[in-house]
Amino acid sequence: MARVDQLASERSKAQFDVDEMKIVWAGSRHTFEISDRISRLVASDPAFRKDNRAMLGRKELFKNTLRKAAHAWKRIIELRLTDEEASRLRFYVDEPAFTDLHWGMFIPAIKGQGTDEQQQKWLPLAYKMQIIGCYAQTELGHGSNVQGLETTATFDPQTDEFIIHSPTLTSSKWWPGGLGKVSTHAVVYARLITDGKDYGVNGFIVQLRSMDDHSPLPGITIGDIGMKFGNGAYNTMDNGVLQFDHVRIPRDQMLMRVSQVTREGKFVQSNVPRQLVYGTMVYVRQTIVSDASCALSRAVCIATRYSAVRRQFGSNNDGVETQVIDYKTQQNRLFPLLASAYAFRFVGEWLKWLYTDVTQRLQANDFSTLPEAHACTAGLKSLTTSATADAIEECRKLCGGHGYLCSSGLPELFAVYVPACTYEGDNVVLLLQVARFLMKTVSQLGSGKKPVGTTAYMGRVEHLMQSSCDARKAEDWLKPSVILEAFEARSARMSVACAQNLAKFANPEEGFAELSADLTEASVAHCQLIVVSKFIEKLQQDIPGKGVKEQLEILCNIYALSLLHKYQGDFLSTGSITSKQASLANDQLRSLYSQVRPNAVALVDAFNYTDHYLGSVLGRYDGNVYPKLYEEAWKDPLNDSVVPDGYHEYIRPLLKQQLRNARL
Amino acid sequence: MARVDQLASERSKAQFDVDEMKIVWAGSRHTFEISDRISRLVASDPAFRKDNRAMLGRKELFKNTLRKAAHAWKRIIELRLTDEEASRLRFYVDEPAFTDLHWGMFIPAIKGQGTDEQQQKWLPLAYKMQIIGCYAQTELGHGSNVQGLETTATFDPQTDEFIIHSPTLTSSKWWPGGLGKVSTHAVVYARLITDGKDYGVNGFIVQLRSMDDHSPLPGITIGDIGMKFGNGAYNTMDNGVLQFDHVRIPRDQMLMRVSQVTREGKFVQSNVPRQLVYGTMVYVRQTIVSDASCALSRAVCIATRYSAVRRQFGSNNDGVETQVIDYKTQQNRLFPLLASAYAFRFVGEWLKWLYTDVTQRLQANDFSTLPEAHACTAGLKSLTTSATADAIEECRKLCGGHGYLCSSGLPELFAVYVPACTYEGDNVVLLLQVARFLMKTVSQLGSGKKPVGTTAYMGRVEHLMQSSCDARKAEDWLKPSVILEAFEARSARMSVACAQNLAKFANPEEGFAELSADLTEASVAHCQLIVVSKFIEKLQQDIPGKGVKEQLEILCNIYALSLLHKYQGDFLSTGSITSKQASLANDQLRSLYSQVRPNAVALVDAFNYTDHYLGSVLGRYDGNVYPKLYEEAWKDPLNDSVVPDGYHEYIRPLLKQQLRNARL
Repeated sequence: MARVDQLASERSKAQFDVDEMKIVWAGSRHTFEISDRISRLVASDPAFRKDNRAMLGRKELFKNTLRKAAHAWKRIIELRLTDEEASRLRFYVDEPAFTDLHWGMFIPAIKGQGTDEQQQKWLPLAYKMQIIGCYAQTELGHGSNVQGLETTATFDPQTDEFIIHSPTLTSSKWWPGGLGKVSTHAVVYARLITDGKDYGVNGFIVQLRSMDDHSPLPGITIGDIGMKFGNGAYNTMDNGVLQFDHVRIPRDQMLMRVSQVTREGKFVQSNVPRQLVYGTMVYVRQTIVSDASCALSRAVCIATRYSAVRRQFGSNNDGVETQVIDYKTQQNRLFPLLASAYAFRFVGEWLKWLYTDVTQRLQANDFSTLPEAHACTAGLKSLTTSATADAIEECRKLCGGHGYLCSSGLPELFAVYVPACTYEGDNVVLLLQVARFLMKTVSQLGSGKKPVGTTAYMGRVEHLMQSSCDARKAEDWLKPSVILEAFEARSARMSVACAQNLAKFANPEEGFAELSADLTEASVAHCQLIVVSKFIEKLQQDIPGKGVKEQLEILCNIYALSLLHKYQGDFLSTGSITSKQASLANDQLRSLYSQVRPNAVALVDAFNYTDHYLGSVLGRYDGNVYPKLYEEAWKDPLNDSVVPDGYHEYIRPLLKQQLRNARL
Repeated sequence: MARVDQLASERSKAQFDVDEMKIVWAGSRHTFEISDRISRLVASDPAFRKDNRAMLGRKELFKNTLRKAAHAWKRIIELRLTDEEASRLRFYVDEPAFTDLHWGMFIPAIKGQGTDEQQQKWLPLAYKMQIIGCYAQTELGHGSNVQGLETTATFDPQTDEFIIHSPTLTSSKWWPGGLGKVSTHAVVYARLITDGKDYGVNGFIVQLRSMDDHSPLPGITIGDIGMKFGNGAYNTMDNGVLQFDHVRIPRDQMLMRVSQVTREGKFVQSNVPRQLVYGTMVYVRQTIVSDASCALSRAVCIATRYSAVRRQFGSNNDGVETQVIDYKTQQNRLFPLLASAYAFRFVGEWLKWLYTDVTQRLQANDFSTLPEAHACTAGLKSLTTSATADAIEECRKLCGGHGYLCSSGLPELFAVYVPACTYEGDNVVLLLQVARFLMKTVSQLGSGKKPVGTTAYMGRVEHLMQSSCDARKAEDWLKPSVILEAFEARSARMSVACAQNLAKFANPEEGFAELSADLTEASVAHCQLIVVSKFIEKLQQDIPGKGVKEQLEILCNIYALSLLHKYQGDFLSTGSITSKQASLANDQLRSLYSQVRPNAVALVDAFNYTDHYLGSVLGRYDGNVYPKLYEEAWKDPLNDSVVPDGYHEYIRPLLKQQLRNARL
């Protein structure tokens, strides 16, 4: 069969070097090369097929995931993949599995909180997967408030053991991935009690299942917590429930890097700074931001390609309908998301640098940038995951009716993505943490303490409170300086207004609670500024490739100006810009849409996603959508027979009016 | 076991008569009585159980739906239910099924477009369900643009038949519910061709399947189009694909009320006004608005009750954590949705009146209000369904991690609801229709033609363009006149600004396309005004019951002021209010939240939903959430065995390092 490319004419319109853009998107030629190679490896291996996922029942689905995880590990060993390659391989397999928690939470927890001795004992086992571990923190009644956990770990000096116990129903561990059916071990968080005193929450390594036959050890009850949102999606994961009935573990299975319990049962703090935990948080949240740009770019890739294939209304002279991507309403919804995908990619890249910087400083006992880095990653995690979740659903709607079919890939992408808004810090709780940091920063402005990093602009607060925006004509909104100043003024003014309103309360905590909705808005403004400014910084670098930088400049401006329009209320109410200027920005935005239009398909090609990874009939590289949709439909189990199961019992009696005596 | 009511203390706080509010919500004592009785009937019948829906495979799920539909029909006959009761029963069964299309589209299409003779022939069969019908309009390549359909119906004068044919792949009928596996008949929309001329799209009654054995008739290919978004949800429906290969039907199966084809093959228009079709649209969209308030209120009921049960952070002196409903961030997200549920309920009720009014006028050949009524229902369909889809997901997020479990009911509610944003008019396409009407209204203002109905305020455009808002202190924002004037000014000014910008284009159609994003925003502003004003009108009626009206006034103000905050940009950029006034409105909003807080649980109790209908462990009436979540978890098929299927093949070899030679 001749190779189809319905999108060839779109691709020929591109005004930039797509291959060079692929390098920019990947971050480096090295990363591109690995991603490209590994993603093709996965795509070409039938064992990693995933297009039937939506149709499988829970048990079948889960067993299939176990098979893929084992196969992936086998391939990793056979091909002697590096850690980086192995991690890419798991990424492109694109199916939540117990391995995510084993590699992403269990091992890092031991590395971060275990002593050298503990690491030497446990890590080699974990690296070889001779044990499989999960991270058992949240409980049925306790999520965000880690200090409220109820599980206890009581030291028994007579036997030199801890007794792990679940005193209530609400103390059941609930949600940990990999726990329900697979993990042999867990890092369990429990209140440490020794000598009759409660020393708060600490981590313990607990064996859960027999290494012989996988059955739960005595005193341990474990199960899966049941179906979650969507077809396929996170139902491939065995999120679990776990209860302890006085389970004993040796004392040396408490993770003792930061605090210890001695043989006599004395609680001792080590001299390792507690701030180290924040370093780990910065790391984890950095990966979440990077994942956001992946999920968002997938959705945008599908919606963009399909918008170029789909035609509706309008009529050129040849009687062919208009491509929906040519409608301004479609562009106005789609292109800001395309721009966001790039924006989140670059801010994620910057966060990687931030993590390295923080780590180096921590090693040199320099904690000065930690609060700012912590607030910044918390805020960016919240901002990017919320925006991505909404964007995936918007992309689904942009695909019209067909976006509702599982074969579009978008329903599963949404369902599998949305937990990111809740895990590793609920997005609203995180915004309040950012707000606390912002209020502290504002309150210290008078004291001469200079704000650092992403809050450095607060140092110019006096200027920003009274500056006025320079934009006089639409093109002025293309200047990075004009955009930055508007975003800085808006953010600074919102923070200062909150601080002033807080000052009216006698009790600051009461004020913080009462004004919390306004405070989250100030946090969002601050975080959007960070993303905008990091995009602008990226463009100050040398970026090779014909037209590549020009396209990125257009996307950067679309990102900023579409936010400016959406959050017009903030900019106007703080007087950061005038209505006239808002309207000019909007005019400029429309013209930017026209500029990005011929490049749209090439800009999503630059993500370099295989059809396997995309997992969408609508987003196929070749745009051959309709024949494939038609083909996919027939695979549904309901089409196994022409006359459906149940016809004789339930449809025929209805038609023949023979219901009256039927037993239904 | 003693009856638990974890929410008793919440209920005792209510400051109004819940039973009276139930009547207000239902619309009348009569409607309340029927809803209450029928919902209990369904809830108490084990045949209508639905809590296992998320776990069923497609075939099992679908067969189960057939069973329920047959059982429902049996009960309707046995109990001799009235049409109203029967329709309520189907509603409370709460499972999309072929019967929705049979009663909701097939029968109305014949009633609306069939001649008296055709109605006499077909309707009795349909009423008794001796035939089952669906509505086959959309095609694989054609959705919103009905005039672009490709299926042909060519008249053959030799045999006095139409030949129905699918000339291309993209002309395959695609999406019709009930088509894939169940319907014996369909109203098929196809291009009428006679005498070599194409007369555009008309409806035809076509038999699809044999009445003997249910197999598709010769020349007809039918199947299901495959899995759709979510667990359970619309997968209970057999949305179908249908292709015709020169299928012949008698001439009298063309629906001939509006146009006919004579025996000789002449196309004739009847004198029945074509506008009648719009009457049907007004009806269908009215029911969609009413459904929006149902879906939204379900989600809000779940989120409100769970927010009162869930505790996190904070600590009263007794060591108990704070109910999350007490956090202002939670209130700020939840209470506007609670208010929206009531707002949509009342605007839906008003639309029922509008439909009656339009129908009476049509019968008297008065078409004067039709364009306004059509624009109004199109806009409200778009506004309420978009807001509801977003709100359900927001409610899910408000339930934290547990909202992600299917047992919360929210994932399925979202998945089953979202198509409402696309079907019966894509929401963006509808907003553009509203915008066209608004632009026309504005352009006619000078001509002395007085705008009617919901656009009457445009008649005061000169005043509204220069009026200034009266609010001087926060409490001024409680005055309906202040709110109305602000919403009217914003909407009028946005429409006028669009009209002025359009005038700058030489080609009006080009201008409309270029400015379409702005135009949709003007439409939204207009539609929000309608909802606000209908809520205010409702409160001008006499509403009995202690405290009932007071609560509704609070909700009305929350609805309006939360919109005012969210769309601050519109209000400020048009100069309809000042920043200071926006800030006062926000202060007032916070104080309204405090007023609604003690009544929140009682306000969702007033929806009178059974636990069966709600289908949510988190939203249980008794608030006994944790034990039931725990209980539900164990029902998952994965928990059938302690050691999972696949352990021996895939987990053990991993742990024992025996992968190398395994065949995976």
